[in-house]
Amino acid sequence: MADAAQDLDLVFTRVVAVPPRLVWRCWTEPALLVRWFTPHPWKTIHAEVDLRPGGIFHTVMESPEGQVMDEPPGCWLEVVPHSRLVWTDALLPGFRPRPNPFVTAVLTFEEVAEGTRYTARVMHKDDADRERHAAMGFEHGWGAALDQLVGVARGLEA
Amino acid sequence: MADAAQDLDLVFTRVVAVPPRLVWRCWTEPALLVRWFTPHPWKTIHAEVDLRPGGIFHTVMESPEGQVMDEPPGCWLEVVPHSRLVWTDALLPGFRPRPNPFVTAVLTFEEVAEGTRYTARVMHKDDADRERHAAMGFEHGWGAALDQLVGVARGLEA
Repeated sequence: MADAAQDLDLVFTRVVAVPPRLVWRCWTEPALLVRWFTPHPWKTIHAEVDLRPGGIFHTVMESPEGQVMDEPPGCWLEVVPHSRLVWTDALLPGFRPRPNPFVTAVLTFEEVAEGTRYTARVMHKDDADRERHAAMGFEHGWGAALDQLVGVARGLEA
Repeated sequence: MADAAQDLDLVFTRVVAVPPRLVWRCWTEPALLVRWFTPHPWKTIHAEVDLRPGGIFHTVMESPEGQVMDEPPGCWLEVVPHSRLVWTDALLPGFRPRPNPFVTAVLTFEEVAEGTRYTARVMHKDDADRERHAAMGFEHGWGAALDQLVGVARGLEA
């Protein structure tokens, strides 16, 4: 989508050797999400998905020391089976605004000869949020989580 | 939609003697929006509509003294022809989060014998925002604008 503010985005993209339909399953089935969504040694201890615009997207993470991170749930904005997902933490389920919006993530899963071109474009409201997110380890975190997703997806193929 | 936080909403509802398809046109055609959207003696001097999820919804108002109020544009979240529109100012066009989110509005146009049951449910993030919006004259403002909408819609029928 054309957007004059793309320098406020962080973009992660990589080709992975699993088909889009399995990437899609990993992103949309709670029982799979908990297996890959948070880079080790943290883990996802709860995931909830109501896959329609305005429906809930909620994950709860736990550190190795047992610290639980349970942010308010976000919601889906676009759902295009096997190819595109958009979610935001700026709106609660049912589209209610919430304080301190941080990101909208646009995920695209494009079928390519090798498998899937996996792209996450993460949009922020200002430079400060973008820089904070980069410093939190955006690139490393999305890469480590994607490695875990590929491991889960390969188990589905077997 | 079920939502445990409905006491953060303001709701305006009234039956009007014009059919849903004309109410819909008044809400979605910029040339009509500028004729009714802002209660007199203020006026709407610009309206922009890209009627799809993530598409722009933008209006600019002007006071009788020439003071221009041009808030950042919002975007549509749901578009169900002739019956339901959802928009928010929490996301810019293309779904980018913005600072200081205030409202999401759910508009429903239900066909009834007399014409249209017109309902606006406006959702806030907290009590303070709800109270501020009520004090700004929510009920009166939506009523005055709707009277203007009905006037415009009747002209379309003629």
